[in-house]
Amino acid sequence: MYDCAIIGTGPAGLEAALTLKARNKNFILIGSNLSSEKVYKAHEIKNYLGLPNILGNDFQNAFLNHIKLMDINITNDMIIQIYDMGDYYALQGKEEMYEAKSIIIATGVKMEKPYIGENELLGNGISYCATCDAQLYKNKDIITIVDSADELDEVNFLSEVVSNLKLIPLYDNNLENRCNIEVVNEKPVEIKKVDKKRVLITDKNEYSVDGIFILRKSVPLSYLLYGIEMDGSHIKVDRLMKTNLRGVFAAGDIVGKPYQYIKAAGEGNVAAISVVSFLDELRRNKNEN
Amino acid sequence: MYDCAIIGTGPAGLEAALTLKARNKNFILIGSNLSSEKVYKAHEIKNYLGLPNILGNDFQNAFLNHIKLMDINITNDMIIQIYDMGDYYALQGKEEMYEAKSIIIATGVKMEKPYIGENELLGNGISYCATCDAQLYKNKDIITIVDSADELDEVNFLSEVVSNLKLIPLYDNNLENRCNIEVVNEKPVEIKKVDKKRVLITDKNEYSVDGIFILRKSVPLSYLLYGIEMDGSHIKVDRLMKTNLRGVFAAGDIVGKPYQYIKAAGEGNVAAISVVSFLDELRRNKNEN
Repeated sequence: MYDCAIIGTGPAGLEAALTLKARNKNFILIGSNLSSEKVYKAHEIKNYLGLPNILGNDFQNAFLNHIKLMDINITNDMIIQIYDMGDYYALQGKEEMYEAKSIIIATGVKMEKPYIGENELLGNGISYCATCDAQLYKNKDIITIVDSADELDEVNFLSEVVSNLKLIPLYDNNLENRCNIEVVNEKPVEIKKVDKKRVLITDKNEYSVDGIFILRKSVPLSYLLYGIEMDGSHIKVDRLMKTNLRGVFAAGDIVGKPYQYIKAAGEGNVAAISVVSFLDELRRNKNEN
Repeated sequence: MYDCAIIGTGPAGLEAALTLKARNKNFILIGSNLSSEKVYKAHEIKNYLGLPNILGNDFQNAFLNHIKLMDINITNDMIIQIYDMGDYYALQGKEEMYEAKSIIIATGVKMEKPYIGENELLGNGISYCATCDAQLYKNKDIITIVDSADELDEVNFLSEVVSNLKLIPLYDNNLENRCNIEVVNEKPVEIKKVDKKRVLITDKNEYSVDGIFILRKSVPLSYLLYGIEMDGSHIKVDRLMKTNLRGVFAAGDIVGKPYQYIKAAGEGNVAAISVVSFLDELRRNKNEN
């Protein structure tokens, strides 16, 4: 059981980790061990105070080097869903399950829009996690939508379990049909439930299957953590980075504009300090009982 | 007339300047050209993401070097009072007067408490600025309280104008009486108005004079900018760093805890972006009229 789970390894998540480490907390930092795409793909950054005119790769190195020097480990996993267990949270990763008393959400903001009907059918024939849900579709027909080649391992795993798999890759590819995988280069538009089947409507066809897997680099926030209060497409926080859920904090692009590196790092710091206060409060309450 | 005046050269003010520069705004950055004491006197800082285990002097150099590379100049002055001129602000510095359409207050938070009675008598026989107010006390008797040797130039200037000057230095000193300056090593406690005189009560005596100059590294916020809304000892801001006054933004320690470098820098960035929006809005309104 960790004191805190930090989700995301952009500037907000990394800075939160540095601050929790300086405060001697027992935390786990979950995300890509490359930091965020927005960091390493950056062109020259001019206004991150102290690191003048820095390029994306050097920016990434400066951050990851700092993390390493502080003996902080990045757990290379992606959190699919978080469950409120009363006095702690359980985090379902693609690789493993984690438990923590508090959470900092620093996943960045993703611009992908859900498909029409996607939100309504969440957890009802639509899945974001092959590892978690493959067995539900044993010997059944599914469609799998992937947004990058990174997800192909999961597609292979799914294909071993299910009967037939239609693969819709949303990136330039030269994929060919093989075994029970049929490659469909079309653009998904809408998802419907028709009787016991799920129907995917693309720009060219309609496909009726038993389940649809959508494998993206991120899951919708409403799915990630049920009941979290939003402000438009951002998580609503106060000046201490508190969300409406007890023990859950958020920082970085996910809490709103401006989408700037140093703003995200500053908020990661505030979120971490708020976590320290929250843990102190937990301990005080425990001692009183 | 500047688009923006940034007051303060700690991490919040410096980062605000970098961001306004990147956005091509015409601004002035006012404060110490050494950055803030809290920066250069820092012990090792472990959690400023990207600058691992950095010492105060190196921290200061990294910041000032970045500012210099971006061709930003620091105007070495101290703002005593800001006047709302309707559609712009006038800033009374010790050295000069400045005019700006918007302001970012990033002065840091000072722990000094006002003396009993000080707030009530502001601008009424109590002054914070020798340059501004000396002539009001020509051939009169005054007391001057200073918190560091940096203020002694102003004391000398005052002594040339007034009749008698009692000097209360609030730091370890070997100052001796000279000409019309009498050194009083006592601790001020309370200020009162008695008839036409101001009375300073110390831990040992009472002194009746015509005026009292209090020369500190900072002026009280309520004096700096009339009508600014506070939250305890901090300026109240929203998540975009807006204060209650139109065109006035604030960032860094002055807007609240945690008092951390990267948090201050992040807020300076947000304040600058908000200034950019404010200036856009000003221009749109002007075009419509």
